[in-house]
Amino acid sequence: MNFNAGPATLPLAALERAQKELLDIEGSGMSIIEHSHRGKVYDAIHNEALALIRELMAVPDTHEVLLLQGGASHQFAMVPMNLLGEGASADYVLTGTWAKKAFAEAKTIGTARLAGSSEKDGKFPRIPKPSELELDPNAAYAHITSNNTIAGTQYFEFPDTGKVPLIADMSSDIMWRPIDVSRFGIIYAGAQKNIGPSGVAVVIVRKDLIANARTDIPSILRYSTHAKANSMSNTPPTFSVYLIRNVLAHVKALGGLEVMEKHNREKAAVLYAAIDGLPDFYSCPVERESRSLMNVVFNLPTPELEAEFIKKAAEKGMVGLKGHRSVGGVRASIYNAAETSWVQALAQFMGEFHKAV
Amino acid sequence: MNFNAGPATLPLAALERAQKELLDIEGSGMSIIEHSHRGKVYDAIHNEALALIRELMAVPDTHEVLLLQGGASHQFAMVPMNLLGEGASADYVLTGTWAKKAFAEAKTIGTARLAGSSEKDGKFPRIPKPSELELDPNAAYAHITSNNTIAGTQYFEFPDTGKVPLIADMSSDIMWRPIDVSRFGIIYAGAQKNIGPSGVAVVIVRKDLIANARTDIPSILRYSTHAKANSMSNTPPTFSVYLIRNVLAHVKALGGLEVMEKHNREKAAVLYAAIDGLPDFYSCPVERESRSLMNVVFNLPTPELEAEFIKKAAEKGMVGLKGHRSVGGVRASIYNAAETSWVQALAQFMGEFHKAV
Repeated sequence: MNFNAGPATLPLAALERAQKELLDIEGSGMSIIEHSHRGKVYDAIHNEALALIRELMAVPDTHEVLLLQGGASHQFAMVPMNLLGEGASADYVLTGTWAKKAFAEAKTIGTARLAGSSEKDGKFPRIPKPSELELDPNAAYAHITSNNTIAGTQYFEFPDTGKVPLIADMSSDIMWRPIDVSRFGIIYAGAQKNIGPSGVAVVIVRKDLIANARTDIPSILRYSTHAKANSMSNTPPTFSVYLIRNVLAHVKALGGLEVMEKHNREKAAVLYAAIDGLPDFYSCPVERESRSLMNVVFNLPTPELEAEFIKKAAEKGMVGLKGHRSVGGVRASIYNAAETSWVQALAQFMGEFHKAV
Repeated sequence: MNFNAGPATLPLAALERAQKELLDIEGSGMSIIEHSHRGKVYDAIHNEALALIRELMAVPDTHEVLLLQGGASHQFAMVPMNLLGEGASADYVLTGTWAKKAFAEAKTIGTARLAGSSEKDGKFPRIPKPSELELDPNAAYAHITSNNTIAGTQYFEFPDTGKVPLIADMSSDIMWRPIDVSRFGIIYAGAQKNIGPSGVAVVIVRKDLIANARTDIPSILRYSTHAKANSMSNTPPTFSVYLIRNVLAHVKALGGLEVMEKHNREKAAVLYAAIDGLPDFYSCPVERESRSLMNVVFNLPTPELEAEFIKKAAEKGMVGLKGHRSVGGVRASIYNAAETSWVQALAQFMGEFHKAV
């Protein structure tokens, strides 16, 4: 029972398929890792992965789907390098550590402006309401972080930024449910939570933003370079893309993102009910309407009890429950591939642990 | 028999180990892909991979070893972004397509100057002699491409650049033999030829170059960011690093780079003897002293015969022999993991094919 915040658990079916094919894919006598990225075997997998992203997320023709290296941290730089021209300013909404990192990186490149923050005493206990934001109608773009792994918060309603392109770091909740992609200028996500291994990022970019992006930057950092080359401008991380294909083929077979949403809502409900059911012992530091369905964070009465809880849970096979070192506490990351039975086991253990102390 | 130019064949032992451990590494009940990069299991593997690179290449304490995403193409940008300050100029030696790409990328960032080229009628049939180079004694650095996968050429003697840091793209021949790392300012290499899967690059950087690098660039693109964080500033490509560990542990068990060199020299000798033994039928377009031991390129009397040769070889289980589309011909890529028996089979087939036509 793997509750890691990321890299995180993946569907067993996707890993079993990888194991079975690891030495010999499609009767080629070679591992997918050994295939040329220009050959037929990899090419079909590459295009299947891109097509599955487009299909599952209903990405409209107005947007390109790219598979890039460097993770979300790399997009922290690529977004402003491509979209933030001289004299322009970009809006950032701060809801946690990763949003702050994206904001800081943008400032190394151009003018970035704080458009809203939910910081309170160094913590981020909620998502700001759209009405609280002070959006610049002339901003080059507005950037949000859709789910916050450390704070345990999540956007359920996205701000209306009008003509200003909305950019979302969806690393930790991409594909948790269907969304309207047409509302976004760019969606980017490191794969290692909901859709694959670390080492590859999905980047969905509106085509007009690519066409109008800056050209005075290195070619490898231009979205246009990768869009023109179908994400094969340089050698792609072939095994990582292959594994995304395996994961998404499995998600599709399960019924797609509507099924994921139902499943994710059920899992989170079990854990939040366990927390709320023992309010004198467990507490969630997040305001109710901002509670993440991906990362359920909670506290026990003392840090000593939290350490004991995490230790005993590990003895029962539940790993990865330690909260991020910057905030402490307990964190159960329950991405798409986490199973309902794990959440039920954790909820049951929460009751038992409370009784035993 | 996989003669792919890259991604390329990997040692079977490294892949078998990966297959065996794919669903459960070290009794954890989880795949290495699902482990946190901050956890003990991955941390040990990460440090083992770094230590194996340092040990096998005898990297001195003056140099950092980094594992970065984006491949060599990303280093085409990172090298000048970090080392090429305002008013400075960098030297580039052109020996093929990839050197030209590195040169072009440097020009998007600062002033890059041609210090030598072996181009002749659009081809690169040799490596320039050190005496032919026109090196700028005040250059920020001098850049070479140690092995040229398309042209089939390789440096066996590196130019003496004096106080100017020598930067080498060793993507296609890193670890083919022992070298004196202290002579280089930076060595970088995409892993997907000699040491692992695509999606990760080994970057060996002299520490003073990191300390004196530009700081007016995005933090994710600074060598200092990754050096300070032991290549864990952002989530590393964990499975790719794991597989490098498997490959290099295998190389070490075989006896290290001296053994690789002996093995590589033997393999290449078999193929060049086969070419030279039938000079009216096979010809190598590369000058003798520049012939690559990693990528053996050759021609037959006509393009039609080359196509027939490649087709018939594939029927005998020899794949990846088609020359790069920009130059045509035949190319046998015989990196560290290619087996002597494959080369012998290819040489034998070359004799049979000649007899049959």
